[in-house]
Amino acid sequence: MKNDEIRSILDAVAGGTLSVDEAQEKLGGLSFAELSYAKLDTDRMVRQGFPEVVFCSGKPKEALVSIYRKLYEAEGAVFGTRASEEQYDAVKSVIDDTTYDPVSRILRCGPATTERKGLVCVCTAGTADIPVAEEAACTAEYFGTWVSRIYDVGVAGIHRLLSQTEQLRKANCVIAVAGMEGALASVIGGLVARPVIAVPTSVGYGASMEGLAALLTMINSCANGISVVNIDNGYGAGYTATQINRLAEEGKDGR
Amino acid sequence: MKNDEIRSILDAVAGGTLSVDEAQEKLGGLSFAELSYAKLDTDRMVRQGFPEVVFCSGKPKEALVSIYRKLYEAEGAVFGTRASEEQYDAVKSVIDDTTYDPVSRILRCGPATTERKGLVCVCTAGTADIPVAEEAACTAEYFGTWVSRIYDVGVAGIHRLLSQTEQLRKANCVIAVAGMEGALASVIGGLVARPVIAVPTSVGYGASMEGLAALLTMINSCANGISVVNIDNGYGAGYTATQINRLAEEGKDGR
Amino acid sequence: MKNDEIRSILDAVAGGTLSVDEAQEKLGGLSFAELSYAKLDTDRMVRQGFPEVVFCSGKPKEALVSIYRKLYEAEGAVFGTRASEEQYDAVKSVIDDTTYDPVSRILRCGPATTERKGLVCVCTAGTADIPVAEEAACTAEYFGTWVSRIYDVGVAGIHRLLSQTEQLRKANCVIAVAGMEGALASVIGGLVARPVIAVPTSVGYGASMEGLAALLTMINSCANGISVVNIDNGYGAGYTATQINRLAEEGKDGR
Amino acid sequence: MKNDEIRSILDAVAGGTLSVDEAQEKLGGLSFAELSYAKLDTDRMVRQGFPEVVFCSGKPKEALVSIYRKLYEAEGAVFGTRASEEQYDAVKSVIDDTTYDPVSRILRCGPATTERKGLVCVCTAGTADIPVAEEAACTAEYFGTWVSRIYDVGVAGIHRLLSQTEQLRKANCVIAVAGMEGALASVIGGLVARPVIAVPTSVGYGASMEGLAALLTMINSCANGISVVNIDNGYGAGYTATQINRLAEEGKDGR
Amino acid sequence: MKNDEIRSILDAVAGGTLSVDEAQEKLGGLSFAELSYAKLDTDRMVRQGFPEVVFCSGKPKEALVSIYRKLYEAEGAVFGTRASEEQYDAVKSVIDDTTYDPVSRILRCGPATTERKGLVCVCTAGTADIPVAEEAACTAEYFGTWVSRIYDVGVAGIHRLLSQTEQLRKANCVIAVAGMEGALASVIGGLVARPVIAVPTSVGYGASMEGLAALLTMINSCANGISVVNIDNGYGAGYTATQINRLAEEGKDGR
Amino acid sequence: MKNDEIRSILDAVAGGTLSVDEAQEKLGGLSFAELSYAKLDTDRMVRQGFPEVVFCSGKPKEALVSIYRKLYEAEGAVFGTRASEEQYDAVKSVIDDTTYDPVSRILRCGPATTERKGLVCVCTAGTADIPVAEEAACTAEYFGTWVSRIYDVGVAGIHRLLSQTEQLRKANCVIAVAGMEGALASVIGGLVARPVIAVPTSVGYGASMEGLAALLTMINSCANGISVVNIDNGYGAGYTATQINRLAEEGKDGR
Amino acid sequence: MKNDEIRSILDAVAGGTLSVDEAQEKLGGLSFAELSYAKLDTDRMVRQGFPEVVFCSGKPKEALVSIYRKLYEAEGAVFGTRASEEQYDAVKSVIDDTTYDPVSRILRCGPATTERKGLVCVCTAGTADIPVAEEAACTAEYFGTWVSRIYDVGVAGIHRLLSQTEQLRKANCVIAVAGMEGALASVIGGLVARPVIAVPTSVGYGASMEGLAALLTMINSCANGISVVNIDNGYGAGYTATQINRLAEEGKDGR
Amino acid sequence: MKNDEIRSILDAVAGGTLSVDEAQEKLGGLSFAELSYAKLDTDRMVRQGFPEVVFCSGKPKEALVSIYRKLYEAEGAVFGTRASEEQYDAVKSVIDDTTYDPVSRILRCGPATTERKGLVCVCTAGTADIPVAEEAACTAEYFGTWVSRIYDVGVAGIHRLLSQTEQLRKANCVIAVAGMEGALASVIGGLVARPVIAVPTSVGYGASMEGLAALLTMINSCANGISVVNIDNGYGAGYTATQINRLAEEGKDGR
Repeated sequence: MKNDEIRSILDAVAGGTLSVDEAQEKLGGLSFAELSYAKLDTDRMVRQGFPEVVFCSGKPKEALVSIYRKLYEAEGAVFGTRASEEQYDAVKSVIDDTTYDPVSRILRCGPATTERKGLVCVCTAGTADIPVAEEAACTAEYFGTWVSRIYDVGVAGIHRLLSQTEQLRKANCVIAVAGMEGALASVIGGLVARPVIAVPTSVGYGASMEGLAALLTMINSCANGISVVNIDNGYGAGYTATQINRLAEEGKDGR
Repeated sequence: MKNDEIRSILDAVAGGTLSVDEAQEKLGGLSFAELSYAKLDTDRMVRQGFPEVVFCSGKPKEALVSIYRKLYEAEGAVFGTRASEEQYDAVKSVIDDTTYDPVSRILRCGPATTERKGLVCVCTAGTADIPVAEEAACTAEYFGTWVSRIYDVGVAGIHRLLSQTEQLRKANCVIAVAGMEGALASVIGGLVARPVIAVPTSVGYGASMEGLAALLTMINSCANGISVVNIDNGYGAGYTATQINRLAEEGKDGR
Repeated sequence: MKNDEIRSILDAVAGGTLSVDEAQEKLGGLSFAELSYAKLDTDRMVRQGFPEVVFCSGKPKEALVSIYRKLYEAEGAVFGTRASEEQYDAVKSVIDDTTYDPVSRILRCGPATTERKGLVCVCTAGTADIPVAEEAACTAEYFGTWVSRIYDVGVAGIHRLLSQTEQLRKANCVIAVAGMEGALASVIGGLVARPVIAVPTSVGYGASMEGLAALLTMINSCANGISVVNIDNGYGAGYTATQINRLAEEGKDGR
Repeated sequence: MKNDEIRSILDAVAGGTLSVDEAQEKLGGLSFAELSYAKLDTDRMVRQGFPEVVFCSGKPKEALVSIYRKLYEAEGAVFGTRASEEQYDAVKSVIDDTTYDPVSRILRCGPATTERKGLVCVCTAGTADIPVAEEAACTAEYFGTWVSRIYDVGVAGIHRLLSQTEQLRKANCVIAVAGMEGALASVIGGLVARPVIAVPTSVGYGASMEGLAALLTMINSCANGISVVNIDNGYGAGYTATQINRLAEEGKDGR
Repeated sequence: MKNDEIRSILDAVAGGTLSVDEAQEKLGGLSFAELSYAKLDTDRMVRQGFPEVVFCSGKPKEALVSIYRKLYEAEGAVFGTRASEEQYDAVKSVIDDTTYDPVSRILRCGPATTERKGLVCVCTAGTADIPVAEEAACTAEYFGTWVSRIYDVGVAGIHRLLSQTEQLRKANCVIAVAGMEGALASVIGGLVARPVIAVPTSVGYGASMEGLAALLTMINSCANGISVVNIDNGYGAGYTATQINRLAEEGKDGR
Repeated sequence: MKNDEIRSILDAVAGGTLSVDEAQEKLGGLSFAELSYAKLDTDRMVRQGFPEVVFCSGKPKEALVSIYRKLYEAEGAVFGTRASEEQYDAVKSVIDDTTYDPVSRILRCGPATTERKGLVCVCTAGTADIPVAEEAACTAEYFGTWVSRIYDVGVAGIHRLLSQTEQLRKANCVIAVAGMEGALASVIGGLVARPVIAVPTSVGYGASMEGLAALLTMINSCANGISVVNIDNGYGAGYTATQINRLAEEGKDGR
Repeated sequence: MKNDEIRSILDAVAGGTLSVDEAQEKLGGLSFAELSYAKLDTDRMVRQGFPEVVFCSGKPKEALVSIYRKLYEAEGAVFGTRASEEQYDAVKSVIDDTTYDPVSRILRCGPATTERKGLVCVCTAGTADIPVAEEAACTAEYFGTWVSRIYDVGVAGIHRLLSQTEQLRKANCVIAVAGMEGALASVIGGLVARPVIAVPTSVGYGASMEGLAALLTMINSCANGISVVNIDNGYGAGYTATQINRLAEEGKDGR
Repeated sequence: MKNDEIRSILDAVAGGTLSVDEAQEKLGGLSFAELSYAKLDTDRMVRQGFPEVVFCSGKPKEALVSIYRKLYEAEGAVFGTRASEEQYDAVKSVIDDTTYDPVSRILRCGPATTERKGLVCVCTAGTADIPVAEEAACTAEYFGTWVSRIYDVGVAGIHRLLSQTEQLRKANCVIAVAGMEGALASVIGGLVARPVIAVPTSVGYGASMEGLAALLTMINSCANGISVVNIDNGYGAGYTATQINRLAEEGKDGR
């Protein structure tokens, strides 16, 4: 719509030859982009109920502190992933209400708990996969999801996993975290009826190629219902699992 | 079997109200594989309500016909992916109630429609991605999902996609199908609040490396809520999307 | 901007408390998306002056003929790349004014010549690279550019290329087309002061890996002013070269 | 040892100043190469008890027939892998005592059975892996091993495999054949105490990259006791499994 | 041409048996290489108007200082990329008129500003891409180009980019800098009519493979007018954009 | 637990010679997961006769010390691979009976020797491959195998290897450890009649790609009887070789 | 040097104000390019003594016939590689003096023999490598080299190769042709004191990746004196071996 | 030959029924392996005239000092590549006659010069390639070759290389050292008639992939007479060039 078209509509309204209702209908098509802009923002608020997530890795201390301070002032809470001890010290020195989990490397300011509903289950193949799993689990918890953890149930000792089948089936979504050969996701996919988010990790050596082997294993899984996120992307898995969990719980809430 | 169940059997044996033979039979059920086997089968029935899916590609005609006949007799319906015209002719010659869609390459026997609920949206970047998208869409429909199709909305003409934002946001889950540079999933991920299943396709040439470039793009997406399935795996995307859609709808059903 | 904000503006105009000028200013932000949509279309017309380009490869004959007929009716001319002889026959049978060049594989309907200005130079390392070079050259010509061709001047006989230096330096942009080791672009980059578009080709065998080796060579070029398009993407190079050529010529035209 | 050193030893023997025993000791080091040559041949006879194996794939019909005829005359039996129907017809036309198995693609002349001992178990993840598994199984049988086959026990339906645990544990060696994500070997490795030979297959599509994904999965297995052969190399797995089986059985034979 | 052939021509001229015209014709072919040599040097001066650019990374401090001193004496100005703080300190200690930008890592001696004309626009997907973008922007500015910066407009929040469309379209050339999935270039390519130089960055983790994923995305872009430089090669993009910008502006200057 | 064992427990309960409490304790193992678990554990004990192996690499000192202490208390011996000097110091400070081998990087607590039988031969191509070879050799020795070492017999000086043929042939299994081009396994495979476990190492530079080149060489070996483990996986090779050696020796023991 | 500078020198010579010696010195720098051009041509004649080599693969029949006819008229002989039977028929129909070798795929016109000197030895690992080896051998023979062939001496049966050591050591240069694991070159490199040209072949399957595995093996060879050409590039190896052989023989000729 | 065959020959000699000459002839076949061993050693002495070369990289200081001491005592000279400053200090402290070149990283003991003949030319594309080039040049010099160095003549400024054509053509062999796009070898291959050894270097960034891009460029070179060694393998190139140079010079010596 050209500017002069907009003008002629306005002229008609001013001149009384066009009702406000008719004008609004004509202009409706215009509202898209800006509304779209606004709507996205609103969406974010509506669907998340918490401030933006900060990817801390590689951010200089000063920049990070400034971001945390700004978000903390605006929102009263900040949630960041892949933070270092040094970053924790720096943020802690300006925001007292700061906690850091060295395993998941999550750096938070503000209240420690959120209201939770539904259930996501996070599994790992080995103990070395736990940091990625904790990033996923803490993300899901922060976003309002109950999380059950089943760690060190790799397929080389399949009985460990099978003994947890009941537990696995209670979840709305399962996150399978594994490095090396990454076969965990396929086995879980065969045991549960819910979506499985597979997270390859960079755990391994030699031909594991920093997680690419596990990524390929998971992408080629012969089980149904498996989809994959980037290597070591615990945050992404926790986020997607939360989306799925909410769909299930929102339905139950009659929303 | 819970420990107290074992105890009550033992009590009965000790009390003489259960013979050793009967006790052994009861405890026999504990032997793990068989129980587990049965439980899985039941699961499949409970959660799917339709026969197994056949991956037709590469199966010799005689073998395929035999599988279709067996499943058709048992279930009254068969659903197969990646079928050829020749395979269609072969199956059609023995099961009259057979239909074939040359675009999605899906070969079906039995009733054409299933009861549907919820909504999944399937998007493609280009027209060449449509066969994979149709495999996803028809799979989701077969499994009982309403599907809206938004095709040819690649990011090089971003306005085409943006004009469909309203439509995208109605779905419980969006499937983004794209070859070449595969950027569609990221843009959609930024527009919707629901999970996005990204399907790389082998569409492209040169450095697209049969879909690997699109796969890498999607796995590295900077948008939240995106997970990825194998190259050209429309079926897998349709299946996962159905799982997610059901979670949303089951909740609404008060189930 | 929310719908009710739009309404309150319209109400104010209708009520006479807001002038049309003021309203237009307030609504200006709205015009973006739809205008954007329209502007893109207009842009395409303004900057190209010809119909869309068709990527013929893999399109079924019926579909291709239908696309050509539609575009030919609308525009009076159609330009398609990567067409086969069979596709030519099919289009020729419905649109008489059709020509096909088996080297560049370009399939055209409508007038054979366009007005040209400026100069782009297209070079190849070997004779096997000529089909890709011709796709680039014919695209640039179709889009209104004069093209000089310097073929078979690979770096293993560097004197062949050097004897053409004068010719190379006359162009606003040089397209360097090479397979195998792809070193042509670097040498040309060192000889000319204008941008060089490098096109790797799939010519070669063994470790050329279908053009990936040439692509890597070109991307790693130590010469300044070189940028790279996809393997065998003559069309893309011709398009970009035309954009650059136009910038040079538009300036001269005082536009 | 230089020739003149040999001569001086011989001179000393001829002159009676060196005994034959002493001379033989001094010359012992010399016997190595030729003996080595001979020993290898003898080894092959001793340890195999059958003629060389022919890799038929790609051999012209005339050449293949000539090889088969020569070996058949010398040994009375020939065993070839990766043969085609056409090659079978060609060999059959000159050697009547010829059989061909279209699944394993093994082409044999001579007696159908060999004496067997010990047990190797061959498993596949899916039905599409059976041709490779049959190449392994038939090779092991031909080399004198009893073989149990457990097919279609992929990890996506783990109960199928677990129900065969008893059977798996009876074998001296297990061959795990799998394409796609190739996770079968890890699970088997966790269930049995014997060596597992993993065979990746080219079954799959997309990011399976013709079996490379399965190869990487298996090489990175977190289970103990797994070693890997080339993609689709059923013959190699059958051969190695036979070597291991013989070691076990030879011990029992008191050898 | 051999030296004695040259001599015999000169002898003939000296002896009067060959006119100067005839001699020049005979010698004409000779002028090529040396002229070529000289012309290249002259070209560099004519088209650049500033000293050579120094690639500082990895150069020992002493060597770097010596290069800077030499160029500074000869030209009165030096421009270097990928410098470290330590290298800055070393150069600063001998050339007082030295400045260093820790973001772009550009190390300059001499006057801070150059005359500028035309406009190039530099965009980034995220904030982590800014160092590469600044290398591009500062290079273009140093070479005499006006630069507009549009940072952090990645495709996962497409509205941020769209709101800048007007700005994008003012430039003679757009540089799109992006890591992770690298989709920014395609979207920009669809919005503007000018050449887009895509710069993949090594920003990302896991399957981003140090920027290779973004490089592949950009090379496979389905948008027209996109060409690609090496990973993190901000300098190369700035250089090529300057070449394009000059073509446009030189035309306007009536050159 | 065998069925007749279950029966005898039940008989004892029925006969009053076993209390229900005692029976439940004995049958506890039967409850599904736990039974399966116990069976594997028992298997591990039966077939290995020593505690679990610890992969030390990357484990924090506190965690490692705690694992070692727990295992040492339970088993009286601990065996760990890929340990650092620092980890040794930490464990040594709490368990006096600790030894560390800086070449193989194996960290042990408890008695230094185990009873051995059979013979495995470990070969390396170069001296740089010795750490991986020692990991294999020490693992095999710890698991009760005699080991002969033949180091630095790479194929570029083939006579060094050939002079050891006799020694090679005495072993039940040969481990071939090689980096760079990794050809050692093929030559050994042609010299011996026993299984060869090939271990690629990350020794090399340039196109050795951290051991991937050696891995590909070994997987493509044209010799029979070769199977491959992960790059630098000395432990895995030692483990598999022990399995094979035991099969041979168990047979001899009449077991 | 500009043309008018040349003229002023010539004027000075003609006018007697500049001696011929001085003029030659001034013009000396000029002689380079043209001489270089001419010298290259002359070189080709001098060092080869035969017409250009034609790479036949992929050339249309008409084009190939035209090239052969032109070269045959000019030189009386033509030598082409990678020709097909069809190409042979086409050339034969216009040049009667044409021969074709279906193994090496070399297509020749003119006299069958050339004068030969020196010796190059060509070895293959297997019989499937012979076509590439024959391309190398025939090329070397055509260029005037005596060639000894040692085929099927792969490292899995190392005695076959060792028995040929004497023969290998007679050659000025050895060409080692091998696919699969490509270890042949390393072993030969350890046996001879002369340069070894390694030719990887695309023989193999699975992880041989069309010869890339063999290429990597050879590039990483731990033996001295090995250099590598492209996969299947028998011609290149034959050419380089001829260059080396000539250096040796030219020295002997007292040249 | 069996031991009893040897004995019967010896018996015959002892008994006088076989002459020593006849016995030696019969035993001749035996001399192979041990002779082979000895011959190789002798070869090494004959063809090299200096002690073994030590690859210093990664060797612990104590081990390196011990190797140097042993070789120095035996040979009076030691030559090692890829040494560090620290290794130099360690060796220097025990062998006074030690020199170290920090550019080539060569660590030598003993006399600094060797007798030289013939000529090899070493070229680099850039200054960053010089360390690898110096490793090649110093190796060739140490092995008795005259070396001319032509550095920083990359193809982006082709005139720099062309001005050295005369110099290039004087050498018996040219070594072309280049990173980034590695095109230098192709251009040199087109300028000279002698063998070119191409050495890719790890110089570059981004898609240079630590030298793999340059390696691929060189392997795919369209020029004749080029063969390639491993990335950064200056030593290997110097060694092979020496072999070629010796062939040329030995011929001239009438050997």
